[in-house]
Amino acid sequence: MKEHGIGSGQIIRRKQDGSLEFQHDDLTIEEPLEIRIGRKTLATTMRTPGHDEELAAGFLVSEGIVRTRDKIDNFSRPAATRNRENILSVQLAEGVKLKLSSTARFGTISTSCGICGKSSIAAIRQNFPPIGSGENARINIETLLSLPALLQKQQGDFARTGGIHAAGIFNLNGEPRVVREDIGRHNAVDKVIGRAFLDGLWPLDRHVLLVSGRGSFEIMQKALSAGIPIVASVSAPSTLAMNFARESNQTLIGFLRPPSFNIYSHIERVIFK
Amino acid sequence: MKEHGIGSGQIIRRKQDGSLEFQHDDLTIEEPLEIRIGRKTLATTMRTPGHDEELAAGFLVSEGIVRTRDKIDNFSRPAATRNRENILSVQLAEGVKLKLSSTARFGTISTSCGICGKSSIAAIRQNFPPIGSGENARINIETLLSLPALLQKQQGDFARTGGIHAAGIFNLNGEPRVVREDIGRHNAVDKVIGRAFLDGLWPLDRHVLLVSGRGSFEIMQKALSAGIPIVASVSAPSTLAMNFARESNQTLIGFLRPPSFNIYSHIERVIFK
Repeated sequence: MKEHGIGSGQIIRRKQDGSLEFQHDDLTIEEPLEIRIGRKTLATTMRTPGHDEELAAGFLVSEGIVRTRDKIDNFSRPAATRNRENILSVQLAEGVKLKLSSTARFGTISTSCGICGKSSIAAIRQNFPPIGSGENARINIETLLSLPALLQKQQGDFARTGGIHAAGIFNLNGEPRVVREDIGRHNAVDKVIGRAFLDGLWPLDRHVLLVSGRGSFEIMQKALSAGIPIVASVSAPSTLAMNFARESNQTLIGFLRPPSFNIYSHIERVIFK
Repeated sequence: MKEHGIGSGQIIRRKQDGSLEFQHDDLTIEEPLEIRIGRKTLATTMRTPGHDEELAAGFLVSEGIVRTRDKIDNFSRPAATRNRENILSVQLAEGVKLKLSSTARFGTISTSCGICGKSSIAAIRQNFPPIGSGENARINIETLLSLPALLQKQQGDFARTGGIHAAGIFNLNGEPRVVREDIGRHNAVDKVIGRAFLDGLWPLDRHVLLVSGRGSFEIMQKALSAGIPIVASVSAPSTLAMNFARESNQTLIGFLRPPSFNIYSHIERVIFK
């Protein structure tokens, strides 16, 4: 599956010495995925093909549409439709109805970015409780520092396109549980959360989420939907991500570039020697 | 205005030598912006505050909702509302109606990512004609190679947060016409296009768009809405961006890191010595 999500094109490259060459180049595949509930379109997101069921599951979870595994019955592709590989239908369990408030919030549409589909600012803060203060998930500083290299190792050849984001879920011993890549940051997070959800590895209250890019508000929100208490990013967080993390009792680490990093909230979960 | 869009927080930093220090850190501000047409919510996007009118104008243009300057009458903030700085209302000119097809496509919502709000894959390809083949906008290779440094120079101190994207519009002589920054890549592009639109610098058929990040499908689509024939990005494009550029007669340059770069489509617009 290492080649999954990679396409290629004939391109012209200008080299360091100024000369030109024609060659094949590896590119990250970007295609739309239309997520349906039954026959109703819920969202369309630009994603890297592969792991679509995880993406759909993670999206439904992080939007608060489903909260337990038994609410999803199965996934299917429409029969004999053009672009059927870019459409995924989720069948909810019998008796589970999409709440009207949810569908109203999406209109007919949304995407995996976590914000699209909110019809007003008031609706943006999702309805997930803060991480419980009684839970003492903590991570050793050396374990924390080992995560970026582990994420990169799991990425494999895919990283060579230079146009891909990665997300990984690790346990508190630093062992990777699931790593996924996608052209969209939010999609990569939805995929790892969706995989854990489908596998019953839930809630993720003793796990860490590491993202290759920035730590934005939506990333924190998606992590909270899965009960993840510690989020680390390789790059910068935003003001809103920091404020959200402080309020939701999440530890937010940024610029995790061993041996350095910044802690923006709840340092008590990091064990220093 | 250099400090626009920067917030700060008390953080804990682990330094290279392993020691910890408390300090203030600059962070990119991320706040939602609700874009309204009159009183109706059209879209909510997570953006860096500042240049909101440009963002709204660029969004309306790239979604095909308005195509000429005279269609926008004015912008206003709601009076005495909480979070009024995060709401912007666009008053369309008298007699201009939002087409039902447009509103249906958005549901009540969307965001600046260019995809959210499309209710189906069939609706994703926007209705903008390809760049005309008779137009011979061309750029000298030396001019092209000078653009990344010019973009960075215009960014100023803002770049120091490490969590910001930039977009710039340059003329064919490499002179910057407008440069904007935002936590969201698509927002930065909407802002530069919106500024040019509001200033009557339109269409941008003899200009180049440079983006600090990746070249995705939506970036190409937004450039096409403004008639921009040449798009350069500092990082990788996706397969869909390349294919879209080839079909829409746009020149797509990626990995523009002087002295190197890749050309993915329509090399005829680059003048080599």
